[in-house]
Amino acid sequence: MPRVRVPVPMRWSDVDAYGHVNNAAMLTLLEEARIATFWADGSEGPAVGTKVLTAGPTATSFTLVARQEIEYLAPLDYSQEPVPVDLWVGRIGGASLEVCYEVYSPAGALCAKAATSIVMVDAATGRPRRLADSERGALEALLEAPIEFRRR
Amino acid sequence: MPRVRVPVPMRWSDVDAYGHVNNAAMLTLLEEARIATFWADGSEGPAVGTKVLTAGPTATSFTLVARQEIEYLAPLDYSQEPVPVDLWVGRIGGASLEVCYEVYSPAGALCAKAATSIVMVDAATGRPRRLADSERGALEALLEAPIEFRRR
Amino acid sequence: MPRVRVPVPMRWSDVDAYGHVNNAAMLTLLEEARIATFWADGSEGPAVGTKVLTAGPTATSFTLVARQEIEYLAPLDYSQEPVPVDLWVGRIGGASLEVCYEVYSPAGALCAKAATSIVMVDAATGRPRRLADSERGALEALLEAPIEFRRR
Amino acid sequence: MPRVRVPVPMRWSDVDAYGHVNNAAMLTLLEEARIATFWADGSEGPAVGTKVLTAGPTATSFTLVARQEIEYLAPLDYSQEPVPVDLWVGRIGGASLEVCYEVYSPAGALCAKAATSIVMVDAATGRPRRLADSERGALEALLEAPIEFRRR
Repeated sequence: MPRVRVPVPMRWSDVDAYGHVNNAAMLTLLEEARIATFWADGSEGPAVGTKVLTAGPTATSFTLVARQEIEYLAPLDYSQEPVPVDLWVGRIGGASLEVCYEVYSPAGALCAKAATSIVMVDAATGRPRRLADSERGALEALLEAPIEFRRR
Repeated sequence: MPRVRVPVPMRWSDVDAYGHVNNAAMLTLLEEARIATFWADGSEGPAVGTKVLTAGPTATSFTLVARQEIEYLAPLDYSQEPVPVDLWVGRIGGASLEVCYEVYSPAGALCAKAATSIVMVDAATGRPRRLADSERGALEALLEAPIEFRRR
Repeated sequence: MPRVRVPVPMRWSDVDAYGHVNNAAMLTLLEEARIATFWADGSEGPAVGTKVLTAGPTATSFTLVARQEIEYLAPLDYSQEPVPVDLWVGRIGGASLEVCYEVYSPAGALCAKAATSIVMVDAATGRPRRLADSERGALEALLEAPIEFRRR
Repeated sequence: MPRVRVPVPMRWSDVDAYGHVNNAAMLTLLEEARIATFWADGSEGPAVGTKVLTAGPTATSFTLVARQEIEYLAPLDYSQEPVPVDLWVGRIGGASLEVCYEVYSPAGALCAKAATSIVMVDAATGRPRRLADSERGALEALLEAPIEFRRR
């Protein structure tokens, strides 16, 4: 399977008074998994695919989160162990892609399934821009069937 | 329309280096809108509907977020003005409900559409429990057609 | 007393698994109290004193937090009531000021004492700049004795 | 020097609209450095020193943050590299200790100096409890001169 497994450190402050990772904090964990996978160098700005490409980062583009969907399947308890996040690309469009995730507890329970739609934006014009062939090739290396949600 | 408009204070720390409210922070704004609408008294524990009911809060139940979906339609810039969040109930199930939201900029632009599925849980057993008739009645007062997402 | 009382909304996600507002989240509450007091319009950038001045906001300056000190005196429990934060100016320097705070529970218990040192910075040069006479006058209206810490 | 160097992962959401790690988020980084050093197993509750002791974690105690002081010396820019945090024990009292930190940029610039006073609390009584000899011994292995602040 082309998916990657990203270990994402949890923080004590992600946990709310119920003792579980807060529902919104879970999206922050997804964001960190996405950055670890795709950003070549965050300090120079995000660029989808640059880390899986031979090309370097570019400040001429950035990415917008257009849509997110998440199912919480089991509470994620606090742990000092990183959270294993499986990440893959579920769809590749002209100027966009869908990132899919499965979030596990350190003990191995499936805690959440999620998907994020991302749009590539040209920094100069602020308009969506087409994925370059090199980016498309890199993203295809992570392509799997899109995640299926249970409760939609 | 039975929806309520909840003014949700934004924070400076919700804004990321792009100058917009972060995608995960947006879910925190939804959470605050939900709490303001439904919790009778957070310090005694959450209980869906208690604020729209004549009955008081109960520590015998709590609520779980089972699912969330959000479309980001326009960036939400920092402002000291509260964020207007329109909130309504889109579906009422046996032991669950769907909360729907439209998030506006203080200037009135529609920035996000979202939905949260919530399950009522019996605190003693940890199992889902049916909505009481009184809760159902209170929730029906907020019932509108479920939100329609564009990009699903 | 020239201090102002700022009602700062707490969030559910400020509370950690101990059921109290997290130690770092407390500084976010201070930041919000400071912004509510001093920023004329956050979307145009911060400017100490503009809200207590007749002059409008200016993008030609910004403020840096140089130092913070906080004593936690009692746990701050979750509440839907805003947190009352008493805020005043403890010292005014050439290019800097010290903001002092007392954080109360909604029920009136003193939960924290804190101080923040802020430096005015010229946006064009990135160097500290002297407080204008008009700013100084406005800040003096909030001047009280600096906070005294117990455990220093 | 007995200090330890803890690599603390930064998050994109720690960075505010100025492009630097937010002043309150910096305390979250300190918290994570402290937990990594001292907590034997967060999921069983915090216990100062258990990680530097042969003894295991104990649910019979917890720790309270009583005081924090921090000087911000240089902005900490976003980076995917972990933040190097030097951590040591500056003082050991009867029931308390002072944790000292120096926070560096991944490139090696000193960005912040800080200290946190922690009190050991007996979980059963809620009262401070004396450090055990074994804890004291473990903490002494990290003992250095307390941090000196410039602007106090």
